[in-house]
Amino acid sequence: MTTTKSAPTTGSDRILNFSAGPSTLPESVLRQAQQDLWNIDGSGIGILEHSHRGKVFDRVIDEAVADCRTVAGISDDYTILFLQGGASLQFGMIPLNFLTAGRTADYADTGVWAKKAMKEAQKIGSVHCAFDGSASGYDHTPDGTETTCTPDAAYFHYCTNNTIYGTQYPAPPTTDAPLIADMSSDIFSRPIDVDAHAMIYAGAQKNLGPAGCTLVIIRKDFLQTASRDTITMLDYFAHAANGSRLNTPPTFAIYVMGLVFKWILDQGGLATMRTRNAEKAALLYTAIDNSGGFYRPVSKTRCRSHMNVTFRTPNEALDEAFLQEAKTHEMSGLKGHRDVGGLRASIYNAFPRAGCAALAQLMSDFAARKG
Amino acid sequence: MTTTKSAPTTGSDRILNFSAGPSTLPESVLRQAQQDLWNIDGSGIGILEHSHRGKVFDRVIDEAVADCRTVAGISDDYTILFLQGGASLQFGMIPLNFLTAGRTADYADTGVWAKKAMKEAQKIGSVHCAFDGSASGYDHTPDGTETTCTPDAAYFHYCTNNTIYGTQYPAPPTTDAPLIADMSSDIFSRPIDVDAHAMIYAGAQKNLGPAGCTLVIIRKDFLQTASRDTITMLDYFAHAANGSRLNTPPTFAIYVMGLVFKWILDQGGLATMRTRNAEKAALLYTAIDNSGGFYRPVSKTRCRSHMNVTFRTPNEALDEAFLQEAKTHEMSGLKGHRDVGGLRASIYNAFPRAGCAALAQLMSDFAARKG
Repeated sequence: MTTTKSAPTTGSDRILNFSAGPSTLPESVLRQAQQDLWNIDGSGIGILEHSHRGKVFDRVIDEAVADCRTVAGISDDYTILFLQGGASLQFGMIPLNFLTAGRTADYADTGVWAKKAMKEAQKIGSVHCAFDGSASGYDHTPDGTETTCTPDAAYFHYCTNNTIYGTQYPAPPTTDAPLIADMSSDIFSRPIDVDAHAMIYAGAQKNLGPAGCTLVIIRKDFLQTASRDTITMLDYFAHAANGSRLNTPPTFAIYVMGLVFKWILDQGGLATMRTRNAEKAALLYTAIDNSGGFYRPVSKTRCRSHMNVTFRTPNEALDEAFLQEAKTHEMSGLKGHRDVGGLRASIYNAFPRAGCAALAQLMSDFAARKG
Repeated sequence: MTTTKSAPTTGSDRILNFSAGPSTLPESVLRQAQQDLWNIDGSGIGILEHSHRGKVFDRVIDEAVADCRTVAGISDDYTILFLQGGASLQFGMIPLNFLTAGRTADYADTGVWAKKAMKEAQKIGSVHCAFDGSASGYDHTPDGTETTCTPDAAYFHYCTNNTIYGTQYPAPPTTDAPLIADMSSDIFSRPIDVDAHAMIYAGAQKNLGPAGCTLVIIRKDFLQTASRDTITMLDYFAHAANGSRLNTPPTFAIYVMGLVFKWILDQGGLATMRTRNAEKAALLYTAIDNSGGFYRPVSKTRCRSHMNVTFRTPNEALDEAFLQEAKTHEMSGLKGHRDVGGLRASIYNAFPRAGCAALAQLMSDFAARKG
């Protein structure tokens, strides 16, 4: 017997959560976290209450770093950091550290968040918009012919997956500049070509864990080029020199991320994630494509996201009717972002295949009745 | 039956956690959090997994703000923000926003953290050290005669409680400048004269909740004076305009802080906290003062902290022997900070009186045997 009376063993009191983020986490991770909130590792102290400089948290963060390396095949050429402030703080830190005087940074504008990153850089220095997706309503990520690069650019910044529009780069863009990727909404959903990047970062709250922690993977020789002309908490070098413990880090978020890394490894790693996510996404895209034009996809086919499936019914009234039906099927979070409208199913790593099958079924039924 | 098998109803598997931070939280808060990790408000979705723009989190953050106002009697003249980056990011944000060209900011240096705040400001603009505590080994907070103020200073920054040394301001310092307080280690441990301050901030991880969230209370007319010449995530005005949801906030940390605010109110509010903390601290200071000189306090008597009780035995070997005995009594976290050595008992709001009584008893017994 425990006092967590409302938590059942079956999971039957949980619904299908299609939220774009924060989003569904593996249920085994939640169960472990429930226990460890009270008493972790038999220490007699809960995970929230442990000193960030004590042995238990040493174990937690050391394992999180090691497991992160294993998950993505990250070599010792890269430093792994757990920072705060979300991807949005990275938008400022990146140019403050790496957009040095006399240089230009290239930014691919594939949506609201990519544009926000670019705008922060424009406050700091010279920026070149290497791709302007706004002209086409952000309905695709650029192919090789659509991007223009600055010679000797300080870096090239892109966003691998655009949550709002449901577009995703099938592969990293080609550039001679150090490549920086915002992977907030698709990190660890598929194998990553880490070595193609100078830096990768991701807010945790979609594929990795709780909001309030940002995973930063940064090549050590690139880190050495940082200007460091900023306040201490924006200085990557200072964070790296202190092993993410320059000050008290977000210990619980790091702990949960560590559990999620172990879960990914237990499931078979990033290759398994890719296969599963492709299959889950295919269920929904097939429902769109087989609807006889009832559902209209937002993204071009070539770059459809495996994380966020975006589509519209013939009109807003039907979008709303669909949302109401979904609710009766215990499906939540399907409303599209206000910038795009329509519907969006976010199906990150921890979202179950059965949930995608259920949604695909509802989509087919709904189209048959209303089409 | 639930799957949180290791969580008992009695609390008997938890030990006395004297950690300086992150630190002990109320057990009722931990029990509630265990449940809500799985399914909060009957929503079928856990607190970690809820969109920061959905109805459940609206409820969480709205109640947290309202309860925070009630706890400390904070009027509508002040904005309440939940930010990331700990107090250390505030050290940079404060001068970036408020240390405008041609002005000087006053800083009272009462220890390592107060000095770090001052050093960040020195990167931005003109700083006057209004009190230099290093000369006396940071053994006290200044009385009214020890502080020198700059006429028309941009602001006066001080740290109410110095965790490392166990010193605490009995009352806010007197200055004509806008007063800014770092209350990271004693916020809500006693009633606060909010109206004496232009801004109050505190990392959550001692008295308020999980690491990874910073409570910022800022007077609206002072906020209007911010220069805003910085990146978006360091712009207080932008955070205030977006109700702490400029980007995804640390939702779980805000949720736990909300539970802690409710716990404080349930216990009787800040007056009760003050009384309890004074009584808890008195148990330990009495053990020091009655030890016939065996225990030597770090702080001057006038400004002894009610949060961090710092003392030394006659020598380092006895300090170590004490720590070993404490361990056998299921007491953890009593080692003093490396800058001071000796012993430190951190006894924040949620630390139980019985734990202080047990430590006081051990101190008396140990002194009688070793003295």
